[in-house]
Amino acid sequence: MAKPHRVHHSAKLIKKRGKKVGAAPGTLIHVGETKNTDINIRLIAYNESSLKEFQLSDPAQCHPPEASDITSWFNIDGLNNPDIIREIGDRFELHPLIQEDILNTDHRPKIEVHDKHLYIVIKMLQFNDQAHDIEFEQISLVVGDDYVLSFQEKPGDVFDGVRERLRSGRRIRRLGPDYLAYALIDALVDNYFLILEKLGDAIEDLEFELLDKPSKDTVNRIHHFKREMLLLRKAIWPLREVLSSLSRDESVILSDEIRMFLRDVYDHTIHIIDNIETLRDLLAGLLDLYVSSVSQRMNEVMKVLTMFASIFMPLTFIAGIYGMNFENMPELQWQWGYPAALFFMALCSGGLLLYFKWRRWW
Amino acid sequence: MAKPHRVHHSAKLIKKRGKKVGAAPGTLIHVGETKNTDINIRLIAYNESSLKEFQLSDPAQCHPPEASDITSWFNIDGLNNPDIIREIGDRFELHPLIQEDILNTDHRPKIEVHDKHLYIVIKMLQFNDQAHDIEFEQISLVVGDDYVLSFQEKPGDVFDGVRERLRSGRRIRRLGPDYLAYALIDALVDNYFLILEKLGDAIEDLEFELLDKPSKDTVNRIHHFKREMLLLRKAIWPLREVLSSLSRDESVILSDEIRMFLRDVYDHTIHIIDNIETLRDLLAGLLDLYVSSVSQRMNEVMKVLTMFASIFMPLTFIAGIYGMNFENMPELQWQWGYPAALFFMALCSGGLLLYFKWRRWW
Amino acid sequence: MAKPHRVHHSAKLIKKRGKKVGAAPGTLIHVGETKNTDINIRLIAYNESSLKEFQLSDPAQCHPPEASDITSWFNIDGLNNPDIIREIGDRFELHPLIQEDILNTDHRPKIEVHDKHLYIVIKMLQFNDQAHDIEFEQISLVVGDDYVLSFQEKPGDVFDGVRERLRSGRRIRRLGPDYLAYALIDALVDNYFLILEKLGDAIEDLEFELLDKPSKDTVNRIHHFKREMLLLRKAIWPLREVLSSLSRDESVILSDEIRMFLRDVYDHTIHIIDNIETLRDLLAGLLDLYVSSVSQRMNEVMKVLTMFASIFMPLTFIAGIYGMNFENMPELQWQWGYPAALFFMALCSGGLLLYFKWRRWW
Amino acid sequence: MAKPHRVHHSAKLIKKRGKKVGAAPGTLIHVGETKNTDINIRLIAYNESSLKEFQLSDPAQCHPPEASDITSWFNIDGLNNPDIIREIGDRFELHPLIQEDILNTDHRPKIEVHDKHLYIVIKMLQFNDQAHDIEFEQISLVVGDDYVLSFQEKPGDVFDGVRERLRSGRRIRRLGPDYLAYALIDALVDNYFLILEKLGDAIEDLEFELLDKPSKDTVNRIHHFKREMLLLRKAIWPLREVLSSLSRDESVILSDEIRMFLRDVYDHTIHIIDNIETLRDLLAGLLDLYVSSVSQRMNEVMKVLTMFASIFMPLTFIAGIYGMNFENMPELQWQWGYPAALFFMALCSGGLLLYFKWRRWW
Amino acid sequence: MAKPHRVHHSAKLIKKRGKKVGAAPGTLIHVGETKNTDINIRLIAYNESSLKEFQLSDPAQCHPPEASDITSWFNIDGLNNPDIIREIGDRFELHPLIQEDILNTDHRPKIEVHDKHLYIVIKMLQFNDQAHDIEFEQISLVVGDDYVLSFQEKPGDVFDGVRERLRSGRRIRRLGPDYLAYALIDALVDNYFLILEKLGDAIEDLEFELLDKPSKDTVNRIHHFKREMLLLRKAIWPLREVLSSLSRDESVILSDEIRMFLRDVYDHTIHIIDNIETLRDLLAGLLDLYVSSVSQRMNEVMKVLTMFASIFMPLTFIAGIYGMNFENMPELQWQWGYPAALFFMALCSGGLLLYFKWRRWW
Repeated sequence: MAKPHRVHHSAKLIKKRGKKVGAAPGTLIHVGETKNTDINIRLIAYNESSLKEFQLSDPAQCHPPEASDITSWFNIDGLNNPDIIREIGDRFELHPLIQEDILNTDHRPKIEVHDKHLYIVIKMLQFNDQAHDIEFEQISLVVGDDYVLSFQEKPGDVFDGVRERLRSGRRIRRLGPDYLAYALIDALVDNYFLILEKLGDAIEDLEFELLDKPSKDTVNRIHHFKREMLLLRKAIWPLREVLSSLSRDESVILSDEIRMFLRDVYDHTIHIIDNIETLRDLLAGLLDLYVSSVSQRMNEVMKVLTMFASIFMPLTFIAGIYGMNFENMPELQWQWGYPAALFFMALCSGGLLLYFKWRRWW
Repeated sequence: MAKPHRVHHSAKLIKKRGKKVGAAPGTLIHVGETKNTDINIRLIAYNESSLKEFQLSDPAQCHPPEASDITSWFNIDGLNNPDIIREIGDRFELHPLIQEDILNTDHRPKIEVHDKHLYIVIKMLQFNDQAHDIEFEQISLVVGDDYVLSFQEKPGDVFDGVRERLRSGRRIRRLGPDYLAYALIDALVDNYFLILEKLGDAIEDLEFELLDKPSKDTVNRIHHFKREMLLLRKAIWPLREVLSSLSRDESVILSDEIRMFLRDVYDHTIHIIDNIETLRDLLAGLLDLYVSSVSQRMNEVMKVLTMFASIFMPLTFIAGIYGMNFENMPELQWQWGYPAALFFMALCSGGLLLYFKWRRWW
Repeated sequence: MAKPHRVHHSAKLIKKRGKKVGAAPGTLIHVGETKNTDINIRLIAYNESSLKEFQLSDPAQCHPPEASDITSWFNIDGLNNPDIIREIGDRFELHPLIQEDILNTDHRPKIEVHDKHLYIVIKMLQFNDQAHDIEFEQISLVVGDDYVLSFQEKPGDVFDGVRERLRSGRRIRRLGPDYLAYALIDALVDNYFLILEKLGDAIEDLEFELLDKPSKDTVNRIHHFKREMLLLRKAIWPLREVLSSLSRDESVILSDEIRMFLRDVYDHTIHIIDNIETLRDLLAGLLDLYVSSVSQRMNEVMKVLTMFASIFMPLTFIAGIYGMNFENMPELQWQWGYPAALFFMALCSGGLLLYFKWRRWW
Repeated sequence: MAKPHRVHHSAKLIKKRGKKVGAAPGTLIHVGETKNTDINIRLIAYNESSLKEFQLSDPAQCHPPEASDITSWFNIDGLNNPDIIREIGDRFELHPLIQEDILNTDHRPKIEVHDKHLYIVIKMLQFNDQAHDIEFEQISLVVGDDYVLSFQEKPGDVFDGVRERLRSGRRIRRLGPDYLAYALIDALVDNYFLILEKLGDAIEDLEFELLDKPSKDTVNRIHHFKREMLLLRKAIWPLREVLSSLSRDESVILSDEIRMFLRDVYDHTIHIIDNIETLRDLLAGLLDLYVSSVSQRMNEVMKVLTMFASIFMPLTFIAGIYGMNFENMPELQWQWGYPAALFFMALCSGGLLLYFKWRRWW
Repeated sequence: MAKPHRVHHSAKLIKKRGKKVGAAPGTLIHVGETKNTDINIRLIAYNESSLKEFQLSDPAQCHPPEASDITSWFNIDGLNNPDIIREIGDRFELHPLIQEDILNTDHRPKIEVHDKHLYIVIKMLQFNDQAHDIEFEQISLVVGDDYVLSFQEKPGDVFDGVRERLRSGRRIRRLGPDYLAYALIDALVDNYFLILEKLGDAIEDLEFELLDKPSKDTVNRIHHFKREMLLLRKAIWPLREVLSSLSRDESVILSDEIRMFLRDVYDHTIHIIDNIETLRDLLAGLLDLYVSSVSQRMNEVMKVLTMFASIFMPLTFIAGIYGMNFENMPELQWQWGYPAALFFMALCSGGLLLYFKWRRWW
């Protein structure tokens, strides 16, 4: 059973934006949290027979590959320097609005079809096991004829599996940048499953705890998970449309085979959304359960109080009567007055106990 | 009336997946619970005039029938050996993504139309009468020109009626693999009705119990059924689209007559979904009923407490007054002081009882 | 004001089905409750100038009329003998699936367009005034070129008005079987209005009772009506689609004029669904009202308790002090000790009463 | 601040209908409340240059205008005499179903496009300022080439502004019956705004009262307004479709210019529906606020009770100890026994007060 | 942490309208609050090479620019003088319905496509940081071939950034009135983000306060924010359709490039709507949290009461017994009677404490 933990929300509901109201579109301003990481560019260039990896130090080294059968994947971590992004963007002829969107990490997942490339925004999730907290990061993909650009804010991603497949030279090396883009999206979506699994486990632990021994902390944790599900839904829901329009897209950048793979990812996304909704419904049910268990326990407490009061108040009253100081109280002089009083008291309390028994109070 | 039972959830909300994030599509990994059952392959090969049944020990024996008028139904139980599934899949020319999906038993119901076959995923339900618990299993159907493959994880299914009809040589033997596939789907959906009936009965028992004599356990059982309905809805809802697109499908695999039968199953599915929604609404109503009955009973308890306290506190106070030790208390010396005090006490309590009567507290 | 009645649900949520899982489609099994009524067939055969009524004893007498201008309405009550249904079905060339559906009285309202006839399933409602309970019965209509078949389970229907119009020879005799089918559907839908009126009245009585003098029974009755509305909605909602597709249907069986009448019935159905939703919303509001009135009354009870306790506990304490047996308690010897104590007690209770008055507790 | 008023619902949820189940369509029966008003027919006949008003006593005087450039508006109040409605209907060649609908005042707003005229049903609202109660009346409009018929049940309408504009000879006299129909609908919809304003004010008064000083009556009034909103929504919601299909209608009766005006009314209707939904959401919020304020106050009451009991029970117990009559109780003989006991009591109660202070109970 | 503030709603739910029911369409009446501001007209006329700013005193100076390459932006603050609006409107050939709509500041956001101009209604929001209160103002934009008119009620807007960009001569000066309109809409929508950020921060402060130390004020503030979100949703939701139809609009006024920019604003609007829904869901969750925390605290209070009562009532009863004045009570004469009684009392209370400990009451 999970140990109660301090509820903590790492994700802000609404991100801060630096853009001045009324600024020109295409104004490059970084919207996000991490301001002091360097920009780190990794290039993997491959064709079916060979693969090379580079660590680029200069954005001027970023440009579409020269040889026609080479696919280049530029993996850019760190968005805090708008000038570098502009330089890269200009080299790949990205529209200023796309450059602005890459820097603004508070976007809905979306897809834009341009003449020479696709621009895709998608969220990468990381699960913090201690805090049961999801961290959200925005991945921007630009897919061209012979290159893929991937932009993200902080180092660390879920693409290691893809890199290994590239290095070990399988089908992925034969199939070009559209397949690479699919592989990246697929890795992101597979990672959603992993995170939902962990969330599902944590919520089932909470359910078990609630049925077994609810604590004061329980309701705060239900709230915490409801909040996480809200953010998760906001991050994943729009992906449905993105992938649906991607697999129906008629641009020349995607081949037919890729479209079939994308439909597969689309099915996974629908499945994930189903799971999110199921978890949300379950959490709503847990809150109902908590509220009714609180009422139920209050009922128990009140019954204890009422039984104590109902039994001892008459007894105390009887004792009070024979504690009165009237001169003329014949019972006080009786030989068996005291035991008779005690017996009468026992009778009273016995009767009341039977009455509560009959009303099924215990 | 149902005996209260220990609430127990057998179905995990979110299934574990073995797939590594970023692994290649078509990577064959079994996603599911039962790891140590053998694979068991039964083949029923029939045409209008004859029927043969085989128990195959070697996946190499699985291949499309040679004679042109024979329909073969391969019924494969057990998914724990990816190699065998790959061998069977390759013999029937199934796409690697389909092979992956067969092994991954955590899928939404879906249909995929390929050139040479249909691939259908659908859930089989089993109801555990003791725990009032539904078990979910995934059936994968591959429907080709002259064969049907059905894959499932654990032994035991709901297809015995279909097997009997095959053996007894009725219309089903004349109509080919598409009709067989329809018959299997129809058996699965008929089984949903059976399970809904049992759930409906159990929920009506719970309703009766709630109106008659609610217990502490009641709210946990309402929660249990709400949870079951969540899982049930998740398993059946997507079937609506599957059957709808199946009956509108224009591939050559399905004949027109089958389409009419499929529309019939579609109607049944809609009906089942209606019933699920009705049961969900009823369960929500039961929770409301429970919560208001708890409030109502708390009200009763508080009235008992208040009446006892209101009657005995003044009496005890009066007794306390005449228990004071002031030297100069003339009433104490009166001849009729004691009876007068008792009479005054009786008057007080009578008045209060009348007051509560007037306020309709009992 | 309505007299409180014992809550009783006559309608099962989910009907029992006799069909074995995996049985062949078109297997004729009666799904329903009444097993021991005879089958009763009434035939009304008419054209513009004449009308004859027959009581048929033998299903062999059921067949499409021979003369070309005659319209025959076969009204079949009782479904417990599948053989008779099969015989009638075969004479009118009904598909085995339709024959199965006629016998299965747990269907959603639906319409099927076949080449030679329309098959319509629709619910007939009866309202039990004592129990405020709705009974549901399934009507199957088969509309052909020159005949109408109507099947139902139990004797008793809402078609007497239609029969009278047929006998009294009005427009209805001139307009053929499609108009007759419309007239039957219209009678069923008019009857829904009647039942909604009665339910609406009963619910408004309940609302009045709740505002005036809620009882323990009230919440059970709210639950009863919510349940009835659930079943009602399930029975009527699909009719919307049925009538919509019927009035847009392009088969040759319906004439244009009938389509206009069907649009009118369609409008009525939408109106009924609006009313059902309004009543459901009102019932949800009544439950909220009940719950908050219970809280409100609990509040009142607690205030009474708190005022009694707060006033008498200090008084009893003061009396207790002067009941102590210390030798050295100077007040006890004072001449005016006793009246002073009483006066001090009166002062205390007066002060507390003023305090509660100031806090607006009464 | 609004004075609390006696909650009273003037509008029945479901109207009584006189129609016998199974009666022929087009059977003219008046469905409504007012049975004994006379029918009153006012005719305004105008063209661009002149206008005449008539009070017609005989339905035979109702007929389409003879001169081709005259527009006639027949304003018929009172529906209790079906014969007169039939006579008027026949003169204007209205279909029997329309005649039936005019008499049945319990209709959803709707539009029917016929060859020679449009038939529009729409609700007129009147607000009763004392009871905060809406009264609903049904207006039937028939719009032909050169006439408009308007039918309603009771005298009194919201068309005086339109009449004045007709008399004062503005654009309205130039633009024919379709513009007149638009003007009537516009007046009805403008009136909805007025009523929503008043309801909105009343609901904001209620909100203020609830935040300031909730009373027992408050929750009944919230319920009353929720009920009004239900009826309002039922009356106005379908108008959305009516006006949408009216402004898209391709019949020759409406000119293009009118269509633009109708789109304007359509926008107003959408706005009104938005406002209704906003008020409904606000009312739901008020109920939540009420329920939590009741809980909050109960909490306060319980704290008072608990503090009184927790302080005085130990004190009374101590007093009770020294009221015991044991012979051997050394404290009783002590010189400072009594003050010491009093001091100990003060210490106890002080400690408990500090404890409650520390737990922030006051 | 935010300081609790007095809840105050500045925005009326339903605005007052001056229009008389039945008045002609196009009747110019100002609907709004501020009646006594002067009308203030600022004109910015620019082409790629030059820019001039004017403060116009006379509406007669408002007219489309004469030189063909000049774009004029008329910024009109103050709507209290219908005559001036009519004069401006007539000069730009605005339809009377548009003139009426400009004056009526209670409109849903909408777009109307006319032959020579687009008419756009959109809301401008201002956030009052003290009261956490949003103020709504309506902006009417008229976009013609070579001019933009913007109308608003009160001075003060969010367009300063746009004005600066105009003055500093960037792309905006080259791209004409459609780009200017886009820039204004973009500034309004960027401002929505700002306000949502502030609201989000305030709501997260409230969430923190609620988890940490809920006060009586908390629930009123939740209600206040729910109300704000209702108004915000009503103001922004329709913008979705406006921008969607604007970016799909085929009129000649918008160039293709602008359409791409508008799709970008459309994406922002969808994002804002997502955020509003997320905040609404969070607020609903906060209310649930509040209600269950009130129940939880009541439970605590009741436990304290019950423990005090259960422990002291038996003790007081025992003391009462030995305070009785029976002559024959042997215990009273015992040497160790008094300590024995005290010991028995200690035993009782210890036992009860253990019992409550065992039931985990503290």
